[in-house]
Amino acid sequence: VTDTAKYVTDNRERYETELAEFLRIPSVSTDGGHADDVKAAAEWLAEKIREAGLEDAEVVATDGHPIVVASHITDPSAPTVLVYGHYDVQPEDPVELWTSPPFEPDIRDGRMYARGSIDDKGQVYMHVKALEARLKNGVGLPVNVKLVFEGEEEVGSKNLEAFLKSNTDRLAADAVLISDTGMFSRDIPSVTLGLRGLAYVEVICRGPKGDLHSGSYGGAVVNPANALCKIVAGLKDDQGRVTIPGFYDKVQDVSAIEKEGLAKLPFDEPGFIAETGVTELDGEVGFSTLERLWYRPTLDVNGLLSGFTGEGAKTVLPSHAMAKVSMRLVPNQDSSEIAELARAHIERLAPAGVTVEVNEQHGGTPWVGDPSSPIFEAGAAALEKSFGNKPVFIREGGSIPIVPMFESLFGPVLLLGFGLPGSNLHAPDEWIDLDMYNTGIMTLVDLYDEIASRGV
Amino acid sequence: VTDTAKYVTDNRERYETELAEFLRIPSVSTDGGHADDVKAAAEWLAEKIREAGLEDAEVVATDGHPIVVASHITDPSAPTVLVYGHYDVQPEDPVELWTSPPFEPDIRDGRMYARGSIDDKGQVYMHVKALEARLKNGVGLPVNVKLVFEGEEEVGSKNLEAFLKSNTDRLAADAVLISDTGMFSRDIPSVTLGLRGLAYVEVICRGPKGDLHSGSYGGAVVNPANALCKIVAGLKDDQGRVTIPGFYDKVQDVSAIEKEGLAKLPFDEPGFIAETGVTELDGEVGFSTLERLWYRPTLDVNGLLSGFTGEGAKTVLPSHAMAKVSMRLVPNQDSSEIAELARAHIERLAPAGVTVEVNEQHGGTPWVGDPSSPIFEAGAAALEKSFGNKPVFIREGGSIPIVPMFESLFGPVLLLGFGLPGSNLHAPDEWIDLDMYNTGIMTLVDLYDEIASRGV
Repeated sequence: VTDTAKYVTDNRERYETELAEFLRIPSVSTDGGHADDVKAAAEWLAEKIREAGLEDAEVVATDGHPIVVASHITDPSAPTVLVYGHYDVQPEDPVELWTSPPFEPDIRDGRMYARGSIDDKGQVYMHVKALEARLKNGVGLPVNVKLVFEGEEEVGSKNLEAFLKSNTDRLAADAVLISDTGMFSRDIPSVTLGLRGLAYVEVICRGPKGDLHSGSYGGAVVNPANALCKIVAGLKDDQGRVTIPGFYDKVQDVSAIEKEGLAKLPFDEPGFIAETGVTELDGEVGFSTLERLWYRPTLDVNGLLSGFTGEGAKTVLPSHAMAKVSMRLVPNQDSSEIAELARAHIERLAPAGVTVEVNEQHGGTPWVGDPSSPIFEAGAAALEKSFGNKPVFIREGGSIPIVPMFESLFGPVLLLGFGLPGSNLHAPDEWIDLDMYNTGIMTLVDLYDEIASRGV
Repeated sequence: VTDTAKYVTDNRERYETELAEFLRIPSVSTDGGHADDVKAAAEWLAEKIREAGLEDAEVVATDGHPIVVASHITDPSAPTVLVYGHYDVQPEDPVELWTSPPFEPDIRDGRMYARGSIDDKGQVYMHVKALEARLKNGVGLPVNVKLVFEGEEEVGSKNLEAFLKSNTDRLAADAVLISDTGMFSRDIPSVTLGLRGLAYVEVICRGPKGDLHSGSYGGAVVNPANALCKIVAGLKDDQGRVTIPGFYDKVQDVSAIEKEGLAKLPFDEPGFIAETGVTELDGEVGFSTLERLWYRPTLDVNGLLSGFTGEGAKTVLPSHAMAKVSMRLVPNQDSSEIAELARAHIERLAPAGVTVEVNEQHGGTPWVGDPSSPIFEAGAAALEKSFGNKPVFIREGGSIPIVPMFESLFGPVLLLGFGLPGSNLHAPDEWIDLDMYNTGIMTLVDLYDEIASRGV
């Protein structure tokens, strides 16, 4: 594919300009006010896919945000790869912490900064450009390719499962390819073999029917904000372990072979500390940082809100307090079961005088892949070719709840992602490394040959 | 003062209309954006005071919001009463919980609903109208009266002390009269003999330098929101006692005579529960509800903010978390000393991996008055005359930090307030009972005769 490599290189600037155009569309799926932008991003993406040579690309409406579907059938008897990604993005707030506006892509030091640059628009667009490089260059594709890009990944892929299940014939494939993860580092290409799952609940603690004056009532009326803090504090013990009864029952121990692999990875703990900006790391006692991130479940508060939060001092005894609490899960924890265990424990922890409401938000099943399947070997070979280094198998602390679903519906899933550590996904100043963007496109170009030569 | 009573009755409707006009000015002192409104309220008030017959009323600029000053000298050898109040109001948020807009006074079931209606514009205006009723009716005043109405009570009266100290001659008085408190009930007129003090701190718990993805980092990076909850939970024990070392050292026990008085008060606990809307009351073990409210110090969270608080689920590990925490104090606790003890304890409670910042907001000294002083007897007599019942001496759980200051600068302070329980001060749907507004004006009309007959 030397000609294709030249094509990618020759078109590098245009590929970046087009990505910036894609990133300018604020396709925030959590916010109903952005529904038209999400749709516009879908239309824009479908048009670019058609221009890349997959002429049947279409935007399919759902009960929520639309799904973009396309295909290129080289030979019905050849293997078929289904590529999944998402063109929706996380909310941009807190917007005041961005160095440049989240929807005005800005290139600094070889990085393009914008919401969605790495999660996941940038990676979705790498696939589109890799396909363009092959199809527009006359090299063609040695396998069949189908694309399915959704607009609801950041809100739990609410309509995806129904769509996939009612289109199993149209989308039928032998393997699934997803680029929504990261590399261990720039020099260590990696294939992600495991993902944590998620159980996310919103806890609302209610006391008085309206806000009260904290002088006139304080001391005799239970304060829902104090109560909420007590509940949240009670969810973890001094060893950093989650206290929810039954929480660890199905957690698998880190195996000896996994511990051995972990020990070989050149994890840069001081670099990780510097990247996050914390004074020191801490977590569940008895586990290393990578074990805490990849192999152990955990519990984090994602948001707190109660009473008066403006400038100055308002002496209010708030009527209610809210915490968003998410738990990252590992095999074989079940998201709904854990959410139920959490609800029961939170209700037990609630002090007299308040009532709690626990609303389950979206969840996701934890996942581990099989490194001996051909699709993983193909991925590893393509990475080695582009990066010049043998890839490592890693896990990812985050969740892609649809991965286990794709696996059960279509076949083995290869997670081949190009994010670098510290890309600020879900945070201000999210970025994509533009060299990685280019190398990733090259890798995806090659991957199709590796798949064709191995079968799936 | 039968003619004066008739005057008050005849002008009742106008008195209410003028109050509504006063309440329409959003004089929110905590918010810099309302500075012009605060000033407009001062100008409006000064004009009404001049119309009432205190022609020297003027708006005096300070480094913050202005102070309205006026006087009526009947006879330099007669006793002088200094009336204090505040025309600034608390912020209106959460505005969505108001039944009618906070700055559009609305009368429902004999109550006028608006921010500041009872705290304290309504009570300030009762004084102005009582003076008008005497001065415009030809009855005159048997004592000298001076007025000082500030615009910074809700932000800790930052410029008041300096103003009072540099105007001790102009403001010289024999007693101080303040209407910024409440009645035990509509049928039990009361004089407030004690106030709790206040120490208010803002706690900011910081972890990573920016928001992180809770999947990629959760479990290894200490979450400042979890840490903040742990700190806040650690500030009280399971007995409802504040855990700050030294917190109770200077707290006076409830005396036998005070316990006896408390026992005689017909405190309606079911009514109190219904009014607040909580399922049950709770607080420091070993104390009754009125003891918890009036005689015991306490600690309340007034606000919480961290991470993602919008609709939906954002999986963020927040960079920081904030709690506003206030402590109500009783004699002889010292506000600054308690704030320092709290700071030290919060720093001790902070887990590894986060740093805490404790910013002292405003504070206030607790206070108890002397019921044997003539000004208290005058107040009790005026109340008995207007209400037909003998008043009781009560305390108030809230703070008026300037009361001890007035006492030390000028003389004994009479707290004669007309708020009813459940007036929603500092909360949505604040109201003033319009019958109480009218009866209060009558009481203040009579009070001057009671003071003149007793001396101060």
